[in-house]
Amino acid sequence: MKNYFIGIDLGGTNIKAAMVNITTGDISGTTSIPTHSREGYDSVIAQMGVLVERVITASKITKSKVGGIGVGVPGVIDMDKGRTLFLPNLPGQWRNVALAEKLSIHAKLPVRIINDARAMTLGEWQFGAGKGVDTVACYTLGTGIGGGLIINGRLHLGIGGAAGELGHVIVDLYGPKCGCGSNGCMEAFASGPAIAAMGMKAVAQGLTTRIAELCEGDLNRITPELVCQAAIEGDSIAKDIYEQAGRYIGVGVASIVTAINPRRVIFGGGVAAAGEIILDPIRRTVQSRVCLTDLKSIQVVLAELGNTAGLVGAAFWASQK
Amino acid sequence: MKNYFIGIDLGGTNIKAAMVNITTGDISGTTSIPTHSREGYDSVIAQMGVLVERVITASKITKSKVGGIGVGVPGVIDMDKGRTLFLPNLPGQWRNVALAEKLSIHAKLPVRIINDARAMTLGEWQFGAGKGVDTVACYTLGTGIGGGLIINGRLHLGIGGAAGELGHVIVDLYGPKCGCGSNGCMEAFASGPAIAAMGMKAVAQGLTTRIAELCEGDLNRITPELVCQAAIEGDSIAKDIYEQAGRYIGVGVASIVTAINPRRVIFGGGVAAAGEIILDPIRRTVQSRVCLTDLKSIQVVLAELGNTAGLVGAAFWASQK
Repeated sequence: MKNYFIGIDLGGTNIKAAMVNITTGDISGTTSIPTHSREGYDSVIAQMGVLVERVITASKITKSKVGGIGVGVPGVIDMDKGRTLFLPNLPGQWRNVALAEKLSIHAKLPVRIINDARAMTLGEWQFGAGKGVDTVACYTLGTGIGGGLIINGRLHLGIGGAAGELGHVIVDLYGPKCGCGSNGCMEAFASGPAIAAMGMKAVAQGLTTRIAELCEGDLNRITPELVCQAAIEGDSIAKDIYEQAGRYIGVGVASIVTAINPRRVIFGGGVAAAGEIILDPIRRTVQSRVCLTDLKSIQVVLAELGNTAGLVGAAFWASQK
Repeated sequence: MKNYFIGIDLGGTNIKAAMVNITTGDISGTTSIPTHSREGYDSVIAQMGVLVERVITASKITKSKVGGIGVGVPGVIDMDKGRTLFLPNLPGQWRNVALAEKLSIHAKLPVRIINDARAMTLGEWQFGAGKGVDTVACYTLGTGIGGGLIINGRLHLGIGGAAGELGHVIVDLYGPKCGCGSNGCMEAFASGPAIAAMGMKAVAQGLTTRIAELCEGDLNRITPELVCQAAIEGDSIAKDIYEQAGRYIGVGVASIVTAINPRRVIFGGGVAAAGEIILDPIRRTVQSRVCLTDLKSIQVVLAELGNTAGLVGAAFWASQK
């Protein structure tokens, strides 16, 4: 079998790609371009085709040595057919687009697609924080909360690859509307936008908080990163916001731990960059909420591969059977 | 390998046992006795030893043809060591009791133990409502709400057999205290006692309801079965109680469906005897709460083996390597 596969991480803002050695997880020729999402899917797929050529050139791996391409896609897909079904963060009519087939024509290589959070799960499991662990739950904390499950040494796919949507485990059935259509999902409480909104509310209420200073009074500038910065500087309101978010996440994690007993729970994505500020309330909540499983055997840790986990995992996926 | 195994279902009220043909799932020599739980575990284990002999006699299968014994245990156990850890419904110091070893000395047969809801899951999967389905979630609705998961054609055990506690998936983080120590678990809202308590409340409030007539004013006589009877007779308060319980259950099921995508969700246990009265609100809630999985491929059904599923599953478990 060929040892090199190209991984692509299709994001709403950027498309990232790299050559991945699927034995070691090493990457080379990493390239990134802004996603031309407003120009529609054909334009974006053409961009990916260009990226593939750039990666091949930059990595100095000849195309004949490349086994194929794996694309991590942000949304609901039909893995078996290689089609996108619903990509909430990408405008441009991505309903039922034959992404794998179209990209394969551009790139002249076989293409497989996978949900981006499942790709990150695979990447961390093979080469990062989940290495050697048989059952793993993985969360990507960002604009949405994605997830993935490794169960008994295998990525758990479910129906058409839809299993593992851990951000949509319900934590409060009376909770706020979620982007998915349900109510009170973990994501509705603790996504990046939810954290930013808590910061906006504090500033709009006129509370004394470092968040107000950092955003210079402009609510548009409040991001999870800005709230995190305020928390790092010791601002108690910002710390409370992360405490809240972490507790909601912890409740959802507790349900997954009780049901599935993953030996390791991994957190990646932009919001997880807050590190212990978000991990600490998650751990405390899991400790107090999980009563029927021996918690000593369960670790709650940060992802290790950073923002390349998704493309590494997508490449690894493309290499599987 | 031997084809006959004895299955035992250890309950707080009765101990049931039967000879199980683990190829066909057929049972014979079924016997049941009241559990002498107040006399302590040694007495109860001696009872099981007596039951084993009775089953062998009644089934007319000679002992040399019997491969072993499987015991379904109501609570937290260490499967690997064959020890009970915490049996909430059995008085008598069952902490860290070497049940498998002790029964094996009585019965002179190898013994394996398994959580009773996981045993029921195995039984229904091999011989009942889950036959031929690769991924199944199973719920036993009774005094507690137990559960079990078949994932990719295999009972998912987790740490020491603790995975599959689906009744303790949280549906409302602000909800009432649960017997497990957490808050707002499905079980805290929708167990048999919770359903009975809703009936008691209606009667105590003096509401006009068939429940009051059926219990003849005695709150002690209100059981889930009595509330169910009132619902069958068309009493709107009783129907509302099952509607409530079914909705809470449905929220927990929705989280499991979103995370794991079981192709079939099976409901057994005393409360599930209400049939469509409880299944209908569960189904409606799952329909409205699961948004990222194709629901057409997921079935919500009743168990088929009745109250022998647990002992059949325990016997099957004993037959596995």
